[in-house]
Amino acid sequence: MKACVLDGRTVGVDAAYPDPVAAQGEVRVRVGLAGVCRTDLEIVKGYMEFTGVLGHEFVGTALEGRCGGRRVVGGINCVCGTCDMCRSRLPTHCRRRTVLGIQGRDGVFAEQTVLPETNLVPVPDSVSDRQAVFAEPLAAAIQIGRQIALEPGQEIIVLGDGRLGQLVAQVFQAWDLAPTVVGKMPDKLAILDGFGIAAVHADEAEPSKTADVVIECTGAAAGLAMALEFVRPRGKIVLKSTVADTAGLNLAPIVVDEVTVVGSRCGPMDAAIEMLAAGHIEVEPLITAEYPLDEALAALEHAATPEAIKVLIRP
Amino acid sequence: MKACVLDGRTVGVDAAYPDPVAAQGEVRVRVGLAGVCRTDLEIVKGYMEFTGVLGHEFVGTALEGRCGGRRVVGGINCVCGTCDMCRSRLPTHCRRRTVLGIQGRDGVFAEQTVLPETNLVPVPDSVSDRQAVFAEPLAAAIQIGRQIALEPGQEIIVLGDGRLGQLVAQVFQAWDLAPTVVGKMPDKLAILDGFGIAAVHADEAEPSKTADVVIECTGAAAGLAMALEFVRPRGKIVLKSTVADTAGLNLAPIVVDEVTVVGSRCGPMDAAIEMLAAGHIEVEPLITAEYPLDEALAALEHAATPEAIKVLIRP
Repeated sequence: MKACVLDGRTVGVDAAYPDPVAAQGEVRVRVGLAGVCRTDLEIVKGYMEFTGVLGHEFVGTALEGRCGGRRVVGGINCVCGTCDMCRSRLPTHCRRRTVLGIQGRDGVFAEQTVLPETNLVPVPDSVSDRQAVFAEPLAAAIQIGRQIALEPGQEIIVLGDGRLGQLVAQVFQAWDLAPTVVGKMPDKLAILDGFGIAAVHADEAEPSKTADVVIECTGAAAGLAMALEFVRPRGKIVLKSTVADTAGLNLAPIVVDEVTVVGSRCGPMDAAIEMLAAGHIEVEPLITAEYPLDEALAALEHAATPEAIKVLIRP
Repeated sequence: MKACVLDGRTVGVDAAYPDPVAAQGEVRVRVGLAGVCRTDLEIVKGYMEFTGVLGHEFVGTALEGRCGGRRVVGGINCVCGTCDMCRSRLPTHCRRRTVLGIQGRDGVFAEQTVLPETNLVPVPDSVSDRQAVFAEPLAAAIQIGRQIALEPGQEIIVLGDGRLGQLVAQVFQAWDLAPTVVGKMPDKLAILDGFGIAAVHADEAEPSKTADVVIECTGAAAGLAMALEFVRPRGKIVLKSTVADTAGLNLAPIVVDEVTVVGSRCGPMDAAIEMLAAGHIEVEPLITAEYPLDEALAALEHAATPEAIKVLIRP
């Protein structure tokens, strides 16, 4: 099959990559549409030392099993079910997990992929492919509300106007919260403004250590230092960026201000599909471009530009 | 009066430093015994850009007010009572606070100091000066239990066998927890061993990402990175070190493992005195040396050696 493959540090489209084979409990999925995430770009830079088919955001059609013939999205963590984390009901932290297109498992920038059947979530007809392909990052946004207490009246800052920051802001708005997004790209801030979400340019934001909650979606190693300038003493920072760089960080403000920093990764795919089906999330303004799989390298390059929000790949 | 003063970057003992003057609501305290903290050493290196009399750990005798003539210890944060933090019952985070020997207020390496009367906590006769001088760092150890849930059965790692790590381990033992201290100094680990507290040399510790809670008391910027090697996914790290250095930190493990990092600073002085009075804390093995105020520079130098635990200064 055709697939976009990272071999060490080189990315290329391979027209004759081996078709994936479903193991016990797994099903093959024909990929309909895939999305490029910041994590994919970090992986290409060497994060996770991954080799194989890139990509983990997708919507496709299950080729077998109980979802056979239906459109599906899928959780990206493939777990053992028996380790201490799985037994503690923390399967996304399975000690022996593989992760779609990230760790030990081929991803979705390909004609076909394979996932455990239990990872699949059916997509209702009312949700288009261009909506459903946002399920994975949307779930990551929803996850924030499962880790910390969020309530109306809080001062909430979202740092970053990119892929994830846009989704976090829309999810929070759907939850009746009033986030303020701090970003750097006027066009991206204008999209938020169009949704009635407060959006401020970083040059105009005045960090005054008053925010109850800061969601760090900058995609940059410096994001935590910036968050510490906004959060109030005893406030909370949710850290979302996984970057290959290290940050030259002064940790003292975390201690002095007794700030809580919460790392946050994958979220509930079923809740994401529900939010899309309920019409709470507007995805079209977030789609920068769509590329055929043959042009996956151009898609990755485009996704890495500051102007891009979500770049899609159609196998 | 005689005082150990930091002027910019130079420390010296000044025999004719102006006597402190008590403002409205404040009382003068004759310092009986003071302790050197890692924070003092960081301040000498430039942390907080402090100038004035160093030191914040003390026991002394109140010279006036309701505690007049009695032995006292004192909370180090001097607060306004009217800002948003004070009104939110977070007075240690007062926006306009001064902090004894740390920020905008002369400290305790002197014959006399001054504090708001409400900061003072009387010391019962059963608690000696050499015990009471530990109240401030002991309160900082107790604070951990007010910020995160600690319970028997948890795997708890204390990183650092120094001043604070020793006290945290003793407090946790008194709370029926079973901490394991990871340190680098055989003599310090032996003290813990003598108390029946598990103590392991860092070279022999095998970080396996299984600890429910890691208390970072290394006093080093690299402490958080080390803590991330011990904590389990979804586990908690309590960060205690305030250091002037910045850390070249890879933040991705916080996100991937969804770790919670909680900064923790000052704690309840009254609870500390209660623990000392109840006989829960053995301080004598932790006292490395006692210097007269005239030799405060030697005391600071001694406190900076790897072998030292608590160095005391007697005005």
